[in-house]
Amino acid sequence: MCEANAYLLRDGKETLIMESVDLVAPEGDGLKLVNIFGEQKFLRAAVHSMSLVDHKVFLKELDRRPA
Amino acid sequence: MCEANAYLLRDGKETLIMESVDLVAPEGDGLKLVNIFGEQKFLRAAVHSMSLVDHKVFLKELDRRPA
Repeated sequence: MCEANAYLLRDGKETLIMESVDLVAPEGDGLKLVNIFGEQKFLRAAVHSMSLVDHKVFLKELDRRPA
Repeated sequence: MCEANAYLLRDGKETLIMESVDLVAPEGDGLKLVNIFGEQKFLRAAVHSMSLVDHKVFLKELDRRPA
């Protein structure tokens, strides 16, 4: 299986958001992540980069809207 | 090895851009793709979605600047 772990990049740090991610797809103003167990998460984020051989996908938060 | 093939989505069609992609990283106003053989490609595109178990990463072209 070639799933990856998804990390959110913020302030130069990587935070693990979800393990064993299979699908990443745009939804609304963010991304839907689905892992190989069928669990879903939604984030207001976009894909920043990935290192597939290392099983890593990095996400970045989208800019917050002005208040 | 868990590399993926990168496809460009345009007009509802998938065009294979690069096989065996390992790294995808932002560069300038687009993305740099690097495959497991060390070959590199640059595209004015962003990541649209991915299906890692299927070894597929989908890219979308960024809007062209107005002339």
